[in-house]
Order: sequence, then structure tokens, then C-alpha cells
Amino acid sequence: MNWQPIIDRYENELLHSVIPFWEKHCIDREYGGFFSCLDRDGSVYDTSKYMWMQWRIVYLFATLYRTPYGAGREDWLQIARDGFDFLTKHGRLDDGSYYFELNRKGEPAMGPFSIFSDCFAAMGAAALYHATGEERYRAEAESAMASYIRRIPDPKGRYEKRLPGKEKFLSHGSYMILANLGCVMAECLGTSRYEADCRTAIDTVMDRFYNPELKVVMENVRPDGTFDLESCEGRFVNPGHGLESMWFMMRYAEAHGDKALIRRAAGYVDDLYRFGRDRKNGGIFYFMDALGKPHLELQWDMKLWWPHNEATIAALYAYRLTGEERFLRMFEEVDAYAFAHFPDPEYGEWYGYLNRYGEPTHLLKGGKWKTFFHLPRMLWISLGQMKLLAAAEAGR
Amino acid sequence: MNWQPIIDRYENELLHSVIPFWEKHCIDREYGGFFSCLDRDGSVYDTSKYMWMQWRIVYLFATLYRTPYGAGREDWLQIARDGFDFLTKHGRLDDGSYYFELNRKGEPAMGPFSIFSDCFAAMGAAALYHATGEERYRAEAESAMASYIRRIPDPKGRYEKRLPGKEKFLSHGSYMILANLGCVMAECLGTSRYEADCRTAIDTVMDRFYNPELKVVMENVRPDGTFDLESCEGRFVNPGHGLESMWFMMRYAEAHGDKALIRRAAGYVDDLYRFGRDRKNGGIFYFMDALGKPHLELQWDMKLWWPHNEATIAALYAYRLTGEERFLRMFEEVDAYAFAHFPDPEYGEWYGYLNRYGEPTHLLKGGKWKTFFHLPRMLWISLGQMKLLAAAEAGR
Repeated sequence: MNWQPIIDRYENELLHSVIPFWEKHCIDREYGGFFSCLDRDGSVYDTSKYMWMQWRIVYLFATLYRTPYGAGREDWLQIARDGFDFLTKHGRLDDGSYYFELNRKGEPAMGPFSIFSDCFAAMGAAALYHATGEERYRAEAESAMASYIRRIPDPKGRYEKRLPGKEKFLSHGSYMILANLGCVMAECLGTSRYEADCRTAIDTVMDRFYNPELKVVMENVRPDGTFDLESCEGRFVNPGHGLESMWFMMRYAEAHGDKALIRRAAGYVDDLYRFGRDRKNGGIFYFMDALGKPHLELQWDMKLWWPHNEATIAALYAYRLTGEERFLRMFEEVDAYAFAHFPDPEYGEWYGYLNRYGEPTHLLKGGKWKTFFHLPRMLWISLGQMKLLAAAEAGR
Repeated sequence: MNWQPIIDRYENELLHSVIPFWEKHCIDREYGGFFSCLDRDGSVYDTSKYMWMQWRIVYLFATLYRTPYGAGREDWLQIARDGFDFLTKHGRLDDGSYYFELNRKGEPAMGPFSIFSDCFAAMGAAALYHATGEERYRAEAESAMASYIRRIPDPKGRYEKRLPGKEKFLSHGSYMILANLGCVMAECLGTSRYEADCRTAIDTVMDRFYNPELKVVMENVRPDGTFDLESCEGRFVNPGHGLESMWFMMRYAEAHGDKALIRRAAGYVDDLYRFGRDRKNGGIFYFMDALGKPHLELQWDMKLWWPHNEATIAALYAYRLTGEERFLRMFEEVDAYAFAHFPDPEYGEWYGYLNRYGEPTHLLKGGKWKTFFHLPRMLWISLGQMKLLAAAEAGR
């Protein structure tokens, strides 16, 4: 396999399309923080500052600064530093948690109802510590991490609408994110203090959420380990989320030399891809029902950029760690679909939202849920995987 | 214009497709209340009992019982009565508000975060009073109505996530629903006690929400009457919602002999239809941005059954009250699109969700947001309008 043309294509996309788009358009030079609601040409169509979107920008610029592509890019580091200052000054509550949204000036606009605001704060601060060694970044990473862990049992706090009559579920998202956080903290802070939490999260994902009869990773399981196939919530499958989770598992397994975990996670990648892909029109569906019953979300059959990003990483990890051809074919299929449909040749970056047939329904490049995160992370991580593959194949 | 073939078609749809589907499939004979999550063939795919969906079923069966089609249909009245008993027993809080959701057994499942639960309770109970004259129904209608009015200034109560940094808006939905409630209460309870609230709501909708420069009814305006064209929320347009609002306005205007209000509302119907229709593929878009900027909701370009239902009623009202041919053409266009795309010839009832091209994305007949409400209401009200038109034309 000649990886070089693909490596060249991914590097070009990262360095000449995606990063320049965000560098140029996302910085609010008047008030600080970032614009994430960017239209096709980079113009700002809304100035709301969503914590998930803001901290993800901090994380990615700080992370990319440490890669070979970031050598000498003090400007990338400065973007992350400035974001950190704005977000810790305006976005943080006294208990260490984060609001969901600030307005342009930094005034709190939406309450702290999402635990993932804390998650992305922890990742952003940790990446800044990794890039600089400055203690204040480590302190904030540990504070946000502590807030995330503290909130897991009751993530929405006073905003929780569920009452005792609602079936209780364990949420795949909470555990997969904790697994990822554990790895990011270990890598960025050089600490093993989250190792036990991380391992528990990994075992929970692998042992609880996979349904062996349906051969798919479920998003919600009962605390007793049984599956609720009578409700929409219990039957909910999110293939992109599952694929993201599985590369988190494989990364952990590789770092810990856990070959059994690699085999299991790679198997689930194959299952999820079989389940989630649209055989007729290409691409991967957004939301699915494990039994093929109606999905309550209207956008279930759309093709979003991020499940394709996560599928790309999962396929490359699985191929490199198992050597099985089926994962190379999966990579080639997802890569071909993604590059044929998502990039905008005129203004750069990728469209985020396509209909079932692969036509863009939105021309925006960023919004309330799309920012400088999944796409550059995929390009950067995939480049690393492909370079390892190329080196291994050259050495054979 | 020969209305008779259209009247026959609408009567057939109401009496031989829509009502039988719900009569047969929606009743939970074991626990009481209704199933609204019904798949294409009427099978139940989720047993959650959403208050909006439940009370709308009560309202429609009680209302249809009083029409000529309901003569002798004590079974329809009984469905509404049984629903009322289940919902007041299990769904009501001590302060007169209603939970958002119960589980199948009637245990509270989601907290009372939606003021519209109270709205539909008021409508259901009022229709039952109208049908029976029984005092307990009037008492509950007035209680739920009082709860709705009390909650308008702070509709989400303890579940409110907005903080002072978030721009404050008046919501078109609150006022249009209050205008409708005032009319329903006047008609069902024979009371004029909501007349002042109703008139204020109507004036608010007409004077505040219409943007004369953009020629469209906005969903959110600032309390000082200005429009925020810098944010997605401020630019939000929901054509089906606006069209529904305008037939509420025309119905009120006709009852009060307010010809100026009829002219204005009919003009806004035309504006909304021009703005919302998809010239290329037919049908009416779901959500839009007043300036054509990106919409944050992924499903914005879908074609939903209910905006087409509301557009049909609005067109017939506007045509009958103004005699202008443009509204007859609008009716013919919307009617042709709807009957060509939504009905399910095999199992009856209508699909609810089509993509931009008019293909069903879901085969369900009911769910968390679709129940026995918009479609039968449209058929029943349209039949009334068409019979008036036919009689007027015959008398010329």
C-alpha cells in the first residue's frame, strides 16, 4: 500500500484548508474568545460562545502546536493561551464547573447543564500544560477534571428533568469520554491518578454497552446490565459515537499492551460500520434504532462530518493493530466518501451536514455543535497512524 | 369552483383513514391513557405518555364528537373521558400544572418544564365541557388555563437555563397560543373572561412579530419591539407556525367583525407562504432564517405534515374572508402537495416527515411530537370552511 499520496492529501487538507480557515476567522479580537458560528466563507452569523466549542478550539491549537506541524508556531499557542484566559475568567463557576454558553462579551448566557463543558475545559487546559509546562494550566486541568468526575452521577444537576418514573440508564457517552479523558490526562499531565477511573470506564464500555445478539454498541443500558428494547431511548444506536469510543479503547489497549482488548474493540468497529453504513447511498447514518423502528430525531438519516472523521480514525487504528484487510477496505470506503462529499474547494474547511444522498443541507463551517475539533483531530491522528503504517510496511 | 369532490375527499380521509387509525391503535386498555408512538401499521414502538400528545387526543375526540360527524359517537366521547380521568389522576401537579411525560403506568417521568402541557390540558378539558356540560370539566379547563397564564412570564420555571447574558425575547408561540386558547375557551365554556388576554395576545402578535422590511412573521422579538438580526434566535422564522397563527387571527377577527385585522392577517398569510415554500421541490420548509443565513437545526429543510395542515386552513380562511384568488391558488397548491406526499394508502393516516424532495424519512404515524391533532383538526376545520364557501357560491 502506498500511503504517501494519502499522507500528502491529509497534510494539505490540515495545513492549507482547515487550520487557515479557523486561524483567520474564529478569533474575536474585540472581546476575546472565539466565534464558532462561521458561515461558508468564514463570516460570523451568530456571536454566541458555547463552552464545548470554545474549549475544543483551545485544545486543538495547543495540541497541534506540539506536533511536528506546530514547530515554531507560537501564534497557534497564543490562540490557545488567549482562549484559556477568556474562558477561565468568564466561563468558570466557583465550584469549578463551566457554563454552557457565554454571550459575545463573556457574560453567562446558559447555565452549567452540560458536564461536557467541564470535559473540554480539562482537555484544553491539559493540552496547554503539555505545550508549556506552566503550572496554572495543570491546576485548571485537574480542577475541571475533578468537576467532571464529581458530576458523573448527576450530570445535569438542578436542570435534570427526569423523574423516578423514567427508566434509568447508564450512558455510553459518560464512560467513553472518561476513558478518553484518562488517556489525555496521562499523556498531557504525565499523571497516573486517573488510571483506575479510566480502566473502570473502559471495562464498562466494553462489558455493558455491546449487545452481542444485535452485534452493536448501544448508547443506553440499564444499570443491571440488561437492554431495554421496548423504548426508543433503550434502542438508540449512534454509529459514529461507537466508532469514536472504539478508537479510544484501542489507543488505551495499545498503550497497555492489552491484545485481547484490541481484538474485541476492532471487532466492534467492524460491527458498527456494518450496522451504520448506508449501502445504497454511501456514508454512515447519524442516529439509528437497534431494531429498525422509527427514530424520534428527524435528522437520523443525515450524513454528518464527524461520524466519518471518527470512522476514519477507528479504521486506521484497527488496521494498524490487527493487520486485517477488512479495516483497510473500511478506511478506503470512508475516506473516499468523505473527501468526495465534505470538503469545500472554494472557501476551504468541510461542510458538516449532508442529507441522505450526500448533498449539503447547510453550508456553514461552524456552529453550535461544529468547531475546530473533529476534523483537524482526525487529520492529525490519521497522519500519525498512516506514517506508522508506512514505516512498518517499508521495514518489512 | 366545485368544492364537492374536495369535500368528499376530506371527509373520506377524516372518517375512513385518520380517525379509524387512532381509534384502533392509540388506546392503552391496560393502564389507561394513550399510545402516541405508533409505527406505520399502528404497532406501538414506545409507551411513553407525553402530555402534549395525550391531551391533544382528548381535545380532538371531544371536539369531533360535537361535529355532525360525531352524532351518536358515544365511543368517541368515552375515549376523551377516559383520557381525562387518566391524565388528571396521574399527570397533574398540586399547583395545577402538568408534567411533560408519564411512563406507561402513569408515573411521572419528566418534570413540568413545558407550559404547553397546561395549554393542551385546558383545551382538552374545555372541549369535554362543551360536549357534556359537566362541571368538573369546566373546573379543570379553568384551572389549567390559570396555570398557563400564570406561567407565561417564566414558562420553564426551575428548568430555565437562560441567564442574564442571554438576549431576552418575546416568543411568538406564547402569544399565538394564548390567542387560540381565548377563542377555544369562549367557544367551549361560553365565557368572556379571557377576552382581554386574548385581545392583548392578538395585538402583540400582529404589532410586534411581523417584520415589515423582511415581510415575514418572526418567532422572537426583543421586548422593546426591535428585531435582533445578529443572532440565529432573532432571525428564526417558522412558516407553519406563522400560518397557524394567522388563521387564529382571522377566526378571531371574523367573530369580532374586525375587517382591518382580516386584511392584515391575510396579507401576512401571503407573505409567509411566499417566504416558506420551496419553489423547486414543492412544499413548505420547516425552519428558516430571515436573512437566509445557516439554521442551527439540522432538519430545517424537511417537509412536515403540520405546516401543510396549517397552511391549508390559513389559505381557506383567507380565501373565504377576502375572496382573493391568490388564496384559492395557495390552497390548491398546498392541498395538491399534501395529498400527493403525506397519506399512506396502505395503512391509513399520514406520514409526518418528508425530506426536501418529498420522500418519507420516517414511516411512523405518531411519536413524541405527532399525534391525533393537526391532521384531523385540519380536515374538520377545512370541511367547515369549504362548506361555507360552497354555500356562498351556490347562493350567488
